[in-house]
Amino acid sequence: MVKRKIGVWLIGAWGGVATTVVVGLTALKRGLTSNTALVTTIPPFDKLDLVGWDEIVLGGHEIRETTSAVEAKQLLEKSHVFQPHLLTQIESDLVAFDKNVRPGTLINVGPTISSLAGSRCHSFDGESAQQALARITKDIQDFQTREKLDRVIVVNVSSTEPPPSDEVLKLSWTELSAKLQQGPGPLPASSLYAIAALQLKCPFVNFTPSVGTDCPALKELAKQQGVVHIGRDGKTGETLMKAVLAPMFAARNLHVMSWVGHNIFGNLDGKVLDDPVNKANKVRSKDHLLTEILGYKPQTLVSIEYIESMGDWKTAWDHIHFQGFLGTPMVLQFTWQGCDSLLAAPLVIDLIRLTEREARRNKSGVMTHLASFFKSPMECDEPAFAYQFQQLTQWAAEVAAEK
Amino acid sequence: MVKRKIGVWLIGAWGGVATTVVVGLTALKRGLTSNTALVTTIPPFDKLDLVGWDEIVLGGHEIRETTSAVEAKQLLEKSHVFQPHLLTQIESDLVAFDKNVRPGTLINVGPTISSLAGSRCHSFDGESAQQALARITKDIQDFQTREKLDRVIVVNVSSTEPPPSDEVLKLSWTELSAKLQQGPGPLPASSLYAIAALQLKCPFVNFTPSVGTDCPALKELAKQQGVVHIGRDGKTGETLMKAVLAPMFAARNLHVMSWVGHNIFGNLDGKVLDDPVNKANKVRSKDHLLTEILGYKPQTLVSIEYIESMGDWKTAWDHIHFQGFLGTPMVLQFTWQGCDSLLAAPLVIDLIRLTEREARRNKSGVMTHLASFFKSPMECDEPAFAYQFQQLTQWAAEVAAEK
Amino acid sequence: MVKRKIGVWLIGAWGGVATTVVVGLTALKRGLTSNTALVTTIPPFDKLDLVGWDEIVLGGHEIRETTSAVEAKQLLEKSHVFQPHLLTQIESDLVAFDKNVRPGTLINVGPTISSLAGSRCHSFDGESAQQALARITKDIQDFQTREKLDRVIVVNVSSTEPPPSDEVLKLSWTELSAKLQQGPGPLPASSLYAIAALQLKCPFVNFTPSVGTDCPALKELAKQQGVVHIGRDGKTGETLMKAVLAPMFAARNLHVMSWVGHNIFGNLDGKVLDDPVNKANKVRSKDHLLTEILGYKPQTLVSIEYIESMGDWKTAWDHIHFQGFLGTPMVLQFTWQGCDSLLAAPLVIDLIRLTEREARRNKSGVMTHLASFFKSPMECDEPAFAYQFQQLTQWAAEVAAEK
Amino acid sequence: MVKRKIGVWLIGAWGGVATTVVVGLTALKRGLTSNTALVTTIPPFDKLDLVGWDEIVLGGHEIRETTSAVEAKQLLEKSHVFQPHLLTQIESDLVAFDKNVRPGTLINVGPTISSLAGSRCHSFDGESAQQALARITKDIQDFQTREKLDRVIVVNVSSTEPPPSDEVLKLSWTELSAKLQQGPGPLPASSLYAIAALQLKCPFVNFTPSVGTDCPALKELAKQQGVVHIGRDGKTGETLMKAVLAPMFAARNLHVMSWVGHNIFGNLDGKVLDDPVNKANKVRSKDHLLTEILGYKPQTLVSIEYIESMGDWKTAWDHIHFQGFLGTPMVLQFTWQGCDSLLAAPLVIDLIRLTEREARRNKSGVMTHLASFFKSPMECDEPAFAYQFQQLTQWAAEVAAEK
Repeated sequence: MVKRKIGVWLIGAWGGVATTVVVGLTALKRGLTSNTALVTTIPPFDKLDLVGWDEIVLGGHEIRETTSAVEAKQLLEKSHVFQPHLLTQIESDLVAFDKNVRPGTLINVGPTISSLAGSRCHSFDGESAQQALARITKDIQDFQTREKLDRVIVVNVSSTEPPPSDEVLKLSWTELSAKLQQGPGPLPASSLYAIAALQLKCPFVNFTPSVGTDCPALKELAKQQGVVHIGRDGKTGETLMKAVLAPMFAARNLHVMSWVGHNIFGNLDGKVLDDPVNKANKVRSKDHLLTEILGYKPQTLVSIEYIESMGDWKTAWDHIHFQGFLGTPMVLQFTWQGCDSLLAAPLVIDLIRLTEREARRNKSGVMTHLASFFKSPMECDEPAFAYQFQQLTQWAAEVAAEK
Repeated sequence: MVKRKIGVWLIGAWGGVATTVVVGLTALKRGLTSNTALVTTIPPFDKLDLVGWDEIVLGGHEIRETTSAVEAKQLLEKSHVFQPHLLTQIESDLVAFDKNVRPGTLINVGPTISSLAGSRCHSFDGESAQQALARITKDIQDFQTREKLDRVIVVNVSSTEPPPSDEVLKLSWTELSAKLQQGPGPLPASSLYAIAALQLKCPFVNFTPSVGTDCPALKELAKQQGVVHIGRDGKTGETLMKAVLAPMFAARNLHVMSWVGHNIFGNLDGKVLDDPVNKANKVRSKDHLLTEILGYKPQTLVSIEYIESMGDWKTAWDHIHFQGFLGTPMVLQFTWQGCDSLLAAPLVIDLIRLTEREARRNKSGVMTHLASFFKSPMECDEPAFAYQFQQLTQWAAEVAAEK
Repeated sequence: MVKRKIGVWLIGAWGGVATTVVVGLTALKRGLTSNTALVTTIPPFDKLDLVGWDEIVLGGHEIRETTSAVEAKQLLEKSHVFQPHLLTQIESDLVAFDKNVRPGTLINVGPTISSLAGSRCHSFDGESAQQALARITKDIQDFQTREKLDRVIVVNVSSTEPPPSDEVLKLSWTELSAKLQQGPGPLPASSLYAIAALQLKCPFVNFTPSVGTDCPALKELAKQQGVVHIGRDGKTGETLMKAVLAPMFAARNLHVMSWVGHNIFGNLDGKVLDDPVNKANKVRSKDHLLTEILGYKPQTLVSIEYIESMGDWKTAWDHIHFQGFLGTPMVLQFTWQGCDSLLAAPLVIDLIRLTEREARRNKSGVMTHLASFFKSPMECDEPAFAYQFQQLTQWAAEVAAEK
Repeated sequence: MVKRKIGVWLIGAWGGVATTVVVGLTALKRGLTSNTALVTTIPPFDKLDLVGWDEIVLGGHEIRETTSAVEAKQLLEKSHVFQPHLLTQIESDLVAFDKNVRPGTLINVGPTISSLAGSRCHSFDGESAQQALARITKDIQDFQTREKLDRVIVVNVSSTEPPPSDEVLKLSWTELSAKLQQGPGPLPASSLYAIAALQLKCPFVNFTPSVGTDCPALKELAKQQGVVHIGRDGKTGETLMKAVLAPMFAARNLHVMSWVGHNIFGNLDGKVLDDPVNKANKVRSKDHLLTEILGYKPQTLVSIEYIESMGDWKTAWDHIHFQGFLGTPMVLQFTWQGCDSLLAAPLVIDLIRLTEREARRNKSGVMTHLASFFKSPMECDEPAFAYQFQQLTQWAAEVAAEK
């Protein structure tokens, strides 16, 4: 069988998630780790001829100046993840990856993210949206040519940006294009990367709460270009729990009076979310689904706080106060202690494989069957995890039947 | 519309669950409480013409000597459940119910349960299985005649018995009938009540871990008699959580290394389960589903302990140690603080309504669509709660379409 | 032995804490409850000839319009505290207490507290500090005369006010008196009540985070008048835990990296603290002691949030991330589920008894031996609970020896 | 200043605690780690001229066949403790230590411990108590000679043995000596090591729940020999919490109705304690102090369970159900996630330093001022941690004053 060559272009290429994707894919390629945490390796997906570990080539944009080896080592030492010998074994792969990393754009990312950027990135300060788009496009094209890739998939795993204004989110593609002619334009970086991707007919996956393609104009563009895309905000921890537990309360007609969730963590994402402008996108993403699942609005409270000592570990404490029969108040509490990058990275790899498969079917538009991977899945009305996962396995059954 | 008159015969009529069923149904009948916690009052079930609160008449067997008012007051004072004025308002209904309570049988219930019985009940010590069956049958028939009932449903909410031998569980109805001719025979009380019910063509619901109808012989009898039945062990708290959370770990391919669950509570059920012979039935019921859902056996530990101060409140602490990507160990812990009788009673009321509806359709045999209500549902291979609940709503859609 | 007659004048007389003090003292007087939670009934205090339950007469100021029976019933129904029959038995005592309640002052209490006040209280809107002082003084004097009291102790259990400016807190009594001649003056209500008390030679206890007597001017006044006083902010739950656990980390040289505490509760206090101006006083009170005990400042986070469904129940979740040997990070988490008024009320009763005893010794000034009762004890440098409690028992031994 | 040379002879020399002592002391000696978790490095102890890290030489007895490098690596890989580079840096020290390890004795250690032993150790199967004593004595003497040590301290950090019979625990030294003349005699290994130590005038520290010197006969021997000793069972985690929290409940007169504690962990200690005979010693040690502190016996439950996936991490969940004012039930829960060996090792190092200091003062008998380090401190009536720690700092002040 001829080997495919699929490029994956990571926005936020030296962040915790991307670093773990690089480390993880290399470990899988070399047989140094198991399939644990990879959804696409369980039985429902084994007949799909998904892209193999060794068929993927990685590159990306990044605003900070560091290396993937430095970032991986920090995860190891500060967060006690990765087996120590693993990093030694894959050193050369990390160096190879770093050669495919290019400076990203800071347009409309807000001051907190800007402050993290290095001088290479700041040398583009003041560039217009058009200049940024041209630069991003060229970086991706060069990657494809250099690595002789059949296809490139663009995946956003960068820090959460402040949301654009509501008006921008209502524009058509024609209206928005016009606005992008003037200076920086109204769109944040995540959407500029997305436009570049779509115009190059590269599928786009937005694993963050940033806007990306989640507005009418970009959905229109994706349809025009015949490209698949999906987003928004990977469902890794506390929200996954909500999507699993809230349907139980609904099915049992137990009345949720209040649902309080406190999240503490200490990685870069946490630092960025400590800025209330950036946090806005995130909290909205974590909170809406309770009302959708329950059919009424309990009192809710979601906090996300940066506690440096936690490193990449996120601890969520949720306190669910519900009313049972005859008005009896009862309580469910949980604490979730998960390592954020390690929870996100395998889902990113799954999304790459599933997106590549759907692109190979010549589909276009929003991949609604991937809703189970996202906190705020685009064009999905059904927030219960069990239902969303069923959609995914049904899609898998259909695709398997096509062959 | 002509009112129905449906009798419900509760085995364990003065226990916590039955007392809460009596208090709750009366409160519903009189409009003193809301529908919270009643599954059958949510939209999927509103077109089914289910039996109304005021169409149900209650009675039952019991081995202790007390009154429902005394038991209700104890729940109020020791476990701080029920609004205080409620019990005053329904005093006369409790007295009326008590008139329908008859002494149960102690055959093969084990020494711990026997020690709780009063002298009325012990006056039947030494009776044979046939004598017990005749007595139970007469009690139920008298109830039906006295209250002019269209149908009687028998529901077991009594303490957990020790399990019978594995051999008995393999016998055919003919073989078992023969054994029931001699002395007490090999069956525990729950199965004797079940036989009496089935022979009277009364549907039988087993809300406890005791055997009830869960053996080939009694399933055969149910088919012969054309009666519906279901069981085993109401899924109220920790196991409900397992049935909801384990599918999440499976769907995300997160490897559960160990799942430890400690349950503490202080009601009569707890006291009985403190006897290891009785506990055997229960722990088995709580533990098996993890392996079924995950497809492999994590190290598990389930403890159930009697802590008197807890009253009817059960606190479960579960510690789930799982492996994520690249072998990273992570932890989910939850504590569930629920009041057992208040969690169980609404499900019992739901089961009464759903069983009555199915009997009205002239069905017979195991009602597999009711699996979501049970820890160890009879004849059900799929332990995930979301799937089981979907079976129930599909049944509801079918029934609604029939009309 | 001649019976004493000690008056207790509660600021916030119909709040949850005061209501529980009234219910509790009546229940104790009538032998309807045990001594549980009363510190002054354990052995170290049994030789002190403390004031008896039946020697205390209650009255107070209040800004809302309600009755103690209504407030008690709400605690019963919303928060499931008090045995239901208790309230019926003490109905007449509650009515008698209500006759001793007078409208309080709203001077400098901030808009959130003002919005809770009834029209009787608002009829004094615009009164000057001098007018308020005169009115408060008269109310207390009338109480003493009417009830023929040997002594009156004033106890502040009202909602948390916004703090006055730092400058006011530095003034001498002469300087402050001058400022109190003009209009409302710079002091919040808690300090006006305190001044009235001190001028009447009534001991003053401040159980809240409001300022009360905790400034140089009022300490000076107390000394002049020869009156004992103490405060600030009853140590009932999460902070008590901090004062107990932090010394353990210090003694074991375990390095606390971060200590996160989230508090949720739904009583009036919670509603008032939802206003950031009022919350300022509280959070400061909960946070400072970690640095004092540990000798360095870990990252800390204290949140207090109003979750209506919780009623008077406060749940605190604390996550303590500490470093052990060889840099190993470890975690202690606790959840405290306590009922605020029921935790506070017995301490208020203890403080009344201990204050009365100290006043009987003709002491004056800050009662530093009562530090263990307060989150921010006045003039106390040692925040460890065990140490503070030792100070209290040593005081008890001294007093016992005097007799 | 002349350097001291102090030998430390570890019983259980390749166990998790001893391995961490070896790794930790080496890291301290070489300046590769901080003083965190070492009690003797905080201010109360800085004037005591305690033995320095580089003045300690390690050796010991062990029954398994492995190396300290292998054990350290397992802690690193399975339990994610130690910084990876640390082990590489200290490799030669581990090898040097291994040269000082000799086969221990299996007399009366029970089948579970015996099953862990290697062939070198089993080659002594059948030796009499006298033979074992002679062998142990020689091993220690050789160590002292070979390493030119001023003094040797023997520290037991081996697995928990089954307890000897109550009769043996009542014998005088003369009576016991007689019994030790015949075959294996009645004493477990821990006491044989202790006898050898005392006869050599080596101080003995028993960090385990095994008997060691905790019986009249051995206390007598220690006095005769003029040697200091102490034990029993290092207070590292859940019991430390009990010793800190229970005094709070007592001081506040909050009535503890029940205290449930579940401990799960996966190290060798856990495996050994899974044998009920060995567990007996441990559970007793964890449970008694509540009654001593509270002055009454709440319902208690302590479980210790071996969950392999936990490695050296112990998670304890404690549920404390207490009654507040007016009979109101409240709950405190905590989860403690600590790494056992990393909690124990620094205390062992502290005990070595404090024991050496006391020996240098020419003291003999039980060192009661070290009670705060033990779950079941010998000859200590006061179980509250704060009190015990005060005893220790008072001792330190006395010793500092002597100089």
